Formats: sequence, structure tokens, C-alpha cells
Amino acid sequence: MNSFGKIFRVTIFGESHGNGIGIVIDGCPAGLPVQFSDFTEDFNRRRSGAKGTTPRKESDIPKIVSGIFNDITTGAPIAVTFENSNTRSRDYAALRETPRPGHADFVATKKFGGFEDYRGGGHFSGRLTLGLVAAGVIAKKLIHPLRVEAKLIEAGGSHDIEKAVDKAIEERDSIGGIIECRITNMPVGLGEPFFDSVEAVLSHMVFSIPAIKGIEFGSGFNAARMKGSEHNDKIISVEGKTSTNYAGGINGGISNGNDLVFRVAVKPTSSTHQAQKTMNFKTGKMTDLEIEGRHDTCIALRVPVVLEAATAIVLADFMLQSQNIERIFKRGM
Amino acid sequence: MNSFGKIFRVTIFGESHGNGIGIVIDGCPAGLPVQFSDFTEDFNRRRSGAKGTTPRKESDIPKIVSGIFNDITTGAPIAVTFENSNTRSRDYAALRETPRPGHADFVATKKFGGFEDYRGGGHFSGRLTLGLVAAGVIAKKLIHPLRVEAKLIEAGGSHDIEKAVDKAIEERDSIGGIIECRITNMPVGLGEPFFDSVEAVLSHMVFSIPAIKGIEFGSGFNAARMKGSEHNDKIISVEGKTSTNYAGGINGGISNGNDLVFRVAVKPTSSTHQAQKTMNFKTGKMTDLEIEGRHDTCIALRVPVVLEAATAIVLADFMLQSQNIERIFKRGM
Amino acid sequence: MNSFGKIFRVTIFGESHGNGIGIVIDGCPAGLPVQFSDFTEDFNRRRSGAKGTTPRKESDIPKIVSGIFNDITTGAPIAVTFENSNTRSRDYAALRETPRPGHADFVATKKFGGFEDYRGGGHFSGRLTLGLVAAGVIAKKLIHPLRVEAKLIEAGGSHDIEKAVDKAIEERDSIGGIIECRITNMPVGLGEPFFDSVEAVLSHMVFSIPAIKGIEFGSGFNAARMKGSEHNDKIISVEGKTSTNYAGGINGGISNGNDLVFRVAVKPTSSTHQAQKTMNFKTGKMTDLEIEGRHDTCIALRVPVVLEAATAIVLADFMLQSQNIERIFKRGM
Amino acid sequence: MNSFGKIFRVTIFGESHGNGIGIVIDGCPAGLPVQFSDFTEDFNRRRSGAKGTTPRKESDIPKIVSGIFNDITTGAPIAVTFENSNTRSRDYAALRETPRPGHADFVATKKFGGFEDYRGGGHFSGRLTLGLVAAGVIAKKLIHPLRVEAKLIEAGGSHDIEKAVDKAIEERDSIGGIIECRITNMPVGLGEPFFDSVEAVLSHMVFSIPAIKGIEFGSGFNAARMKGSEHNDKIISVEGKTSTNYAGGINGGISNGNDLVFRVAVKPTSSTHQAQKTMNFKTGKMTDLEIEGRHDTCIALRVPVVLEAATAIVLADFMLQSQNIERIFKRGM
Repeated sequence: MNSFGKIFRVTIFGESHGNGIGIVIDGCPAGLPVQFSDFTEDFNRRRSGAKGTTPRKESDIPKIVSGIFNDITTGAPIAVTFENSNTRSRDYAALRETPRPGHADFVATKKFGGFEDYRGGGHFSGRLTLGLVAAGVIAKKLIHPLRVEAKLIEAGGSHDIEKAVDKAIEERDSIGGIIECRITNMPVGLGEPFFDSVEAVLSHMVFSIPAIKGIEFGSGFNAARMKGSEHNDKIISVEGKTSTNYAGGINGGISNGNDLVFRVAVKPTSSTHQAQKTMNFKTGKMTDLEIEGRHDTCIALRVPVVLEAATAIVLADFMLQSQNIERIFKRGM
Repeated sequence: MNSFGKIFRVTIFGESHGNGIGIVIDGCPAGLPVQFSDFTEDFNRRRSGAKGTTPRKESDIPKIVSGIFNDITTGAPIAVTFENSNTRSRDYAALRETPRPGHADFVATKKFGGFEDYRGGGHFSGRLTLGLVAAGVIAKKLIHPLRVEAKLIEAGGSHDIEKAVDKAIEERDSIGGIIECRITNMPVGLGEPFFDSVEAVLSHMVFSIPAIKGIEFGSGFNAARMKGSEHNDKIISVEGKTSTNYAGGINGGISNGNDLVFRVAVKPTSSTHQAQKTMNFKTGKMTDLEIEGRHDTCIALRVPVVLEAATAIVLADFMLQSQNIERIFKRGM
Repeated sequence: MNSFGKIFRVTIFGESHGNGIGIVIDGCPAGLPVQFSDFTEDFNRRRSGAKGTTPRKESDIPKIVSGIFNDITTGAPIAVTFENSNTRSRDYAALRETPRPGHADFVATKKFGGFEDYRGGGHFSGRLTLGLVAAGVIAKKLIHPLRVEAKLIEAGGSHDIEKAVDKAIEERDSIGGIIECRITNMPVGLGEPFFDSVEAVLSHMVFSIPAIKGIEFGSGFNAARMKGSEHNDKIISVEGKTSTNYAGGINGGISNGNDLVFRVAVKPTSSTHQAQKTMNFKTGKMTDLEIEGRHDTCIALRVPVVLEAATAIVLADFMLQSQNIERIFKRGM
Repeated sequence: MNSFGKIFRVTIFGESHGNGIGIVIDGCPAGLPVQFSDFTEDFNRRRSGAKGTTPRKESDIPKIVSGIFNDITTGAPIAVTFENSNTRSRDYAALRETPRPGHADFVATKKFGGFEDYRGGGHFSGRLTLGLVAAGVIAKKLIHPLRVEAKLIEAGGSHDIEKAVDKAIEERDSIGGIIECRITNMPVGLGEPFFDSVEAVLSHMVFSIPAIKGIEFGSGFNAARMKGSEHNDKIISVEGKTSTNYAGGINGGISNGNDLVFRVAVKPTSSTHQAQKTMNFKTGKMTDLEIEGRHDTCIALRVPVVLEAATAIVLADFMLQSQNIERIFKRGM
């Protein structure tokens, strides 16, 4: 299903080369100011065109269909659509016989019986993350003063990211990267034990972003190599501040008021300018495949703003859920 | 919320030192043979008592309240409960003033206003994974011939796991580990693009298991250091078999018919036999804390069977969801 | 699925003649006092034994498995189970060949492939409403000062209910009835436009109660015979009080602060002491059927407390959802 | 929340006088042929303009944003939007001080803190049912050979509906009506015991349609006046055909293979051409209100096609859910 969230709930739709894409944001409280210009910064961060990203320039002008009136949310669902343009479908038609390695072409055909919109990845396209970013802009405003910030901290195994990208462009290859996301001003008490732990819900949302292969919270995989005596974060204030933050701001699935910290691994873009081998499903024989199109050398460059949006959406939902609990206490039961 | 799944849906309840724990499994089709003895093997794998695990021996006798009649599922919800016994609540009462580092004590009190059952971790206790294992036994039968197998591949940073455990016992400390899970006989087409991708739903469920700090699929974090030309798995058969499996059996969020492979990081047990510093919330001063109780030196030793259960539950749900699609095709639309 | 609710969420399980029945109540805030004795009054109202109800006396002693500690809710899921006793399964075994008219016997066998627990209606049994009543007791406390009251206002077409029941007993037949439910101290603003309107969610829950064939809000079916000039309720105070209440306390799906009023129709009990015709599925011929067992002459006598519980559960969920909205306003966005 | 359904799931958005309205239909299987012209008939049935309906002519041209490719569903979410036009917002602005009796004006302002789009009913508008009808067209195709048919059988208390409408127009008043819906070619086994009974889920969806005040299945409210010996439908064939159909095609919440039959009561349109009293919220005094705009004399005339759509959407979801069960049986467990 293409929906996510309990109270603050998003539903995405669209295909890369169809009429357009969009998102419905349900459960946003009434009274939040949202202006057209609020979207500009994050849309620009996601946009392609910079070195290491595809030269395909998409139309990123949002059409706000509903839910915002006089620049304020109404409490009704907010629908935002984007038209598709600058699509070159001819690049993709011939690929049906030779599914691109690393892409969803093969599984899509199998799953949808050959009826899928195969052009440009169709519904699997990264183009749909534009809707997520739009929802993220609204979610970020809603969760203020919580602040979400994601940064690419490593690309192609190197911390000199610009050099790594240059090298990959030169080699006509693609590279992956690691992004760290940090949320500051966290309250204590978001998340639930077990199925709706902060890690569980965040990772669910984060793996919705194409190309992500791993996620770790706080000490993450390093935790597996540490001793308990090292790994336990000492509580040093009655607000719950800890001396270290190996837990990444979460205990028992619940936020503990320290910064929430996690990292994700982004795989190298599957499409490169090099020829590769794949099965030709018409002939049943291996064949050479060159993917013309326009490719991102390092898609990880464009992921941080999407990751922030995904995170803000999850936090908005947690914040709205947690109001209940606090309020009930105030009623003094 | 304490429920997970769309069609095959589990709901857990219980506390470590209350009357008992249990699980409701809804959406299991009628007609699946389930006998009392089917639970024995996986319960034994989860049970403590072996070297490196706590000497607390729990009562693991399931009471099947509903949903199974004459050793066959009826199609009604299956409720399984377990009584608690062998609990030593006195170990925990004094800890209220001095929340244990790494545990949920502090966040639970903040979140639930001091009304939480604080004994032995209460609802946050790993004791509740017993219900998951029970559901996993049923899910494994349902998804046959798919086969789920999880193994501890590293503990305390070492592949010689027995030695690592011995050392930690000697040091009165605790260690973490890494577990790999592999599912064989996978069909093509499980999972959905975006929010219900295989990675998204699996990671959601997996992070419900206490002590897990990271998850990676296929090449995982290594993908971030690879080039696209290396990372793409070549399709070498019309069934979709690939020459390598960096994707971990998933493209675009959909299973591609190759083995599904992922790894999780388990942190070292938070309770150890060493004294630690923590805040005393009554005095507002730092204090020494010794946690008496009985502890697992390496909780990761007991996680593989829980991880298998979590995985089987998710796969059962995906399998039941996917039937729709296939069937509609057969109706020839 | 056997769950209902978004935040205050119940999951029921059990069969009439199996080991027991029960309910899990998730999402109840921590800090609500709940004592064993709180259940007595409503359990007694639901209990059989009075004139017009079956002489089968069930065991109605709740076992609180989890979620309540020191007589206060903990915020963790509350599981309550009831053992079955005083079951006479021999009454039912022979009925498999001759499904009882008006009962679920035929559809259950078809739906569950013959694997259903057919004894005493199995999972379809009114016995399961005991769990609803338990959840209702908690929900009623939670929604205080809202007050839910349901009354049987008509039985067998007569307002003299006792006389109607006496006549039906004499005739060895059964009768239906109409129950009115009124909720006082309603706030303005519960419910949502469209799918989660108060009428929509309430009717969903109410039709879960066996034997209910219709529901109407406010003027209900009479509205279809009224003119707009008569039917509109005049607003006569700034709090929204109206001069009449044809709307039943709801406009546009949202509570308007006036009493919430609705009525349900309960069909006559399907089992009577008279012989009836039905198909014998073994012979394929029509046959006479006498249902021995123990029957309610007028099941509608026992429904009001179940209806109150169902209503309180829905209102508890609406109340918890609506806190969000109000609170966000208070943050002054 | 503005979503409904488990597998076949719709999400609606939009306001009467905003940019537009629309619907997202998720979970529709790939491979279903859907052409632009398929929508014409049902859109015409819903359209206003005939005697007894408002002269406001809306733009009903669907824009299919996603999910359909080459006139066939792709398996991805289907988004359909409609632009608003021919809106006269000036009719509504002055009404803010004097909420219209019978409308959602008062509750909307209270619920959404005054931030709601108040023009023409905003998100509460019947205009949004256009999206439901669009989804209904697709659902009807999906559930073939099941056939849904709804008819207005009574208006203003009369079976001569044309005469009743004429009289109401003459009196400058409005009238309600009763609509009967019948589904033929029903399979046995749709629906679940308790919370997801056919009656429960259908009534939930049906009460989403504005102006509906009651629903009854089969004998409905008459059941409350019947005896068990009359009311039980005799099973007269091994396929489950019954001699009568007081149950309305449902036993124990599950379809029994006979026609599914239910009726709904539609209240008279709240807006009429007569002056009415209401509270002026600025002055705090009662005042006269004349609602200019354009009104439906008998909105019930336009409801049958919406009711069919709502019903088909629910049945599509039940059909997709039930495939699972049958299929599992075929695997021979």
C-alpha cells in the first residue's frame, strides 16, 4: 500500500513518465501557516543538475489541490500534485526485453503481469520522492522546535566527497554513500515499546526511499563489537541527559531526550554509462546492455533532503500521537 | 500500538513480572495443522540456561486459548498465553530511584507518568518475544516451502563465539553480536514499491526485537563503498537468478526470487555484573549502581530464533497479500 | 480482522465452547484506576438467567493478564480472559449436517472450509460480547464525564416489554426489539468528515454485535418523510444547543454538543423451541430440525449493556484522537 | 482520516470551492481495462440539473493522474482529480456569522479552530462524492459478475416520487427519501465475524455519504417486530439458497450467497428557499437566515449512484481479501 502513518498520514501516487505524481497528507492539524515559497529550499536541495547528479531537469512546481486556504492548513487532507515534463520515454521502451540489473524492471513485470508502466521506472521512480519532500516541508514546520538535519558524510568510501564524485565521473561509473541524520531538541517519550518503537517506524519509512540498503541507530553495527560496560550511556541529569550517546537517543524504543542519531547506507546508482551483461528475456540469452538515458553518478548527493523529509513525517506522526498521553495526565486521572 | 501486520496480524501483551504474557494471531487461514509439540524446538532455542545466557528459567508452556480446534487452525484468531513464574520482583523495586543505564526505566517512567509496571522491565521485557516465537512457529508452517534460518555469525567482534563469551563471563561484562538471516525458496514479487517494500516492513518488525541497533540487506553498508559496475547483480536466468546477490534478494522493494539475506547488529546486554554510575532521581546526585538479578552475558545468543520468527511473520503477511494479485490474473482480466 | 479502533483499540478472540474468550485493549492511557469490582455491574446486566434469557449460566470471572498494576492502568495493553465452563457440546455436534436457519453454521463451514469450531456458534458466539463489555467498563471510565445509556424501548412490537416476553415464552417462540442509546455531556468536534464520521464509526462497531439488523441516528428513517423546514435543528445558543435534535447530535459527521442519540433493531433469536425445516447437507433433502440447547426468548434484553460498551469504546477512541487537535491549538500555531 | 479499505483502499481530498477534488485508489490489481468513457454513465447519473436537483452544473471531467497506462490498470495507485469551476463563493462568505442549521458550518468552525475552508461546505461538500463515484466505476468492473443496483423507492413519504418532488418545489421546501440497494450474484463467504462483518463495513462506508441517517439490512427495523419462527430464512438448496431473505443475504456477518439487500434513509436537504432562524455568533442573538445559493430539492435523487459506488468499493475490498482464504485451501493445507 502506498500510505504511511497513523495520524499524520501520507499517500503517494504517480509514475516517472505518466501525467504526474503527487501526495496526499492527511491528519495535519488546522492552523499551520504554509506558503508556496516554503517549498523552494528543500525542492532545490533535491533537484538534479549539480555535479554528480543527472542533467534531467524536472518540473518541480507544486500544485496545491486542497487542504490549504489563505496560506494556512484547514485540517482537511492536503493534496499536492506535480506535472511530469521533460520525459524521454523512447529511452526505456526497448529495455523491456532486457531488464536493467539493479533496477525493478524484472520484478515489476513479474509482479504486475506485464501491465506496469515501465517507462523510466514507472511507479518505482525516485521522482516520487518529490512528494515526500513536499510533505516533509510541512512536517518540519509542524514539529518545530525539533530540528532534522541530514548530511552525506562519506561517498565511494571516502570522506572527500567531491574528489570521490570526480573520480566516478571520470570512470563513467557510479558510487554510493553514507548519510547521517541528527534530530535535535527531542522530547522524552516518543515511540512505543515493540512494534512502534522509534527505530521500527523510522526504519520502515526510511527504507521506502529507493537505494537504501542499511540503517543503524547510535552506535549501530559497532555496538556488536562493544562491551556493555562501555556501551551503556550514563544518565547525568534529571532530564535524562547522558554522558555518551551510543543509544542514538533511544532506549526501549522510546526517545530519551538526547539527540536522535542514525545513519543510512545508499547503494551506487544502478544505471551507469558502462555496458553491462543481462538476460534478454525474448531470446533467453545473455546480451550486452547500454543504458543511454541520463544518470546520477552519486544519487546519495540528493538523498539527504529526502531522508530529512521521511524523518520529519515520522516525527510529526509520533508528536501527534504523544499529545494524547500528556493531555490525559493533565486531566488529572 | 502493540499490533503488526495487515492480513496475518499479531498483537502482543504482557509484562515481565505480571500475571503472564501472550499473543493474538489474527488472519491465519483455516486448515493449517498446528500441534502443541510444534512449539518445542523453537521455544528451546529461545530458552535461557545455556552458557552466556541468564540462569533465570521461565515457564514456557503455551496455553492455546482459541483458534485451534482438533489440532487444526479454524480461521478465528489464535490466542496463546504464558503464565509468569520464577519472578524475583524484589530485585527491581529499589531501582526506581536509580534508572538502569541502557534500559527503558527512565523513558518508561517519563512516558507513562510513573504508572508503568516497572518490575523486570515490565512491558519492555524480552520475555514478550516468547509470544513472537509462538507466532513464528505458525508462520513458518504457513509459508512452507519458504525457509527462514538465522545464525549468530559474530560475537564481541570475534567469529569464535564460544571464546568471546568465555572471555566476557570472566570479565563480568557483556558483549553484542551480529546475526545473519537467510530465506530460501523465495518467490518473485513479494513486497510493494515504497512504503511496504520488503526492507521497510521487515526492518519495522525486526527493530521491535529489543537490543537491535542496525539492519542491512545484501551488501548493506558495504554498498556505500562499492561502484555501480561491481554492485549490479547480473540476471543470468529467465527466472531471475543473479550471478551475485549484493541486492540481498530485493530490487525496488520487491523480492526477486534469489535468497533474501540480511544482517542485524545486537548491542551488548545493558545489565552486567559490574557497578556503574547513574543519576539518583531522588537525591539528584550521581550514585553507584549494582544490578543484582540474573543477566545474559550475550543476549545475541538467544536472538536468532526470535529473528526467524519476526521474519516468518512478515513473510506470512506478504504471502497472504500476494495471493490476491496472482489470483486476479487467473480470473483472466 | 478481529480488531477495532485507531488509538483505543480492541482485539477479541475466543470461541463459545473452546478454552475461553478474551480481549486485548490497546492504547488506554496510563493512570486510569480500574478495580476488579468495576466490572460487576455491567457483567450482571449482560448475564443470562432473568426471564426471557437463556438459563445457561456462564463463568464471567475476568482474568486480568496484563496492563493493570496496583489497580491502575500502566499504558501497556490490557488483556482480559475468561474461561469457558458449563458448555454442553453434545447439543451441537449433530447439527453439522443440518445448519440452523438464521445462524452462521452454513456460512462458517463454507468460509472456513469445514475447519471452524462449530460448537455453539464457535467464534460467532454472543459469548464474545463479554470481552466487549469488559472493554466498555474501562472505556466508560475513560470518557467520563460523557455518559452512555442504552434502553430496550420496544420488544416484539410492543412497549410493554414484560408482557411481550411472557407471550413469546408461552408460544415457545422468540422476539426482537428496539434499543435506544443516548450519550450526554457530549463535546463539540468528535468525528471526521466522510469515512470517520461519528455515524460511520459507531455503526461499524455496533453492527459487530450479533443480531443487529438496523441503526438510525436522530430522526433516522423518519427523516426520509420530513421536510427540510421541519427537520433543521435551530441553533439557539453560542455553545451550539439546538431547539430540536433531529440530527441526533451530529452534523456533517461531527458531534455538535447536543445529546448523541441512535436506535438499533435487534432481530428475534434464531434458535427457538419450535421445529423448523432446513436442508440436510448429507442427504440433500429437506428435514425437520429441533434445536435443543438453551435459548434466549428475547436476546434484545441482554443487548443494551453490550451496546453501551460498543459505544463507549468508539467514543474513547474519538476522544483520544481529538486531543491532538485541541492541543495543537494550545501550542498557538 | 480520509481513507477507507484494507486492500482496495480509497483516499479522498478536496473542497467545494478550492482548486479541485480527487481520489486515490490504492490496491486495484493490475490488468483491469479502464477507459475514459467508462465513467460517463455514472457521472451523468450523479450530475445535477434534472428536476429536483440544484442547477449548479459542475465540471465532472476526470484527470487520471496515475495508475492507468494504455487504458489498463498498472497495479500502482490510481489518482483521479477534478477541477472546480462554476463556484460562486460570494454566496457563502457572509454565512460565517450565522451557521446554517443542519449543515456542518458550526461544528467545522469549532473543530478546525476557524481555519476551515468554509466556502460551500468546504471539505464537507457533497462534491467529494464525485471521487467516490469514480472509484465505484472501477470497483464495479473489478467485482464483475457481482452487480450492484440502487434505486430511490420513496421520497417525502410517497412512492410517487415525481409528484412528491413537484409538491416540494412548489412549497419551496426540501424532502428526503429511502433508497434500496441490491447486490446480485453474491458469493458465499464475504465478510468476517464481528468487527468486519458485511453489515459493519458497509454501514461504515455508507454513512460516509452526506445526509444519510439510517441503514437497515434485510428485514431491518421490521425484524424487531417479528417472531423467530417467521424471521428465520429456510435453507432450501445445498448452495444455501433460502426461501425468504429476511437476513438480507447475511448470516453472522458473512454473505450467504443470496442477494445482499439494504436500505438507507436520506434526510431532506438542509438548505431550502425558506427563511429560517439561527444564532448570529457575532451578536449572540437569534436572527433570520435566507440561504441564497442553489439547492437540491431532493438530494436523495442523486444518491443512488453514490450508494452503488460506496457498495462496490466495499465489495471489491471484501473480494480481494477473500481470495486469500480460498487460495490457501487450493494449496491443500
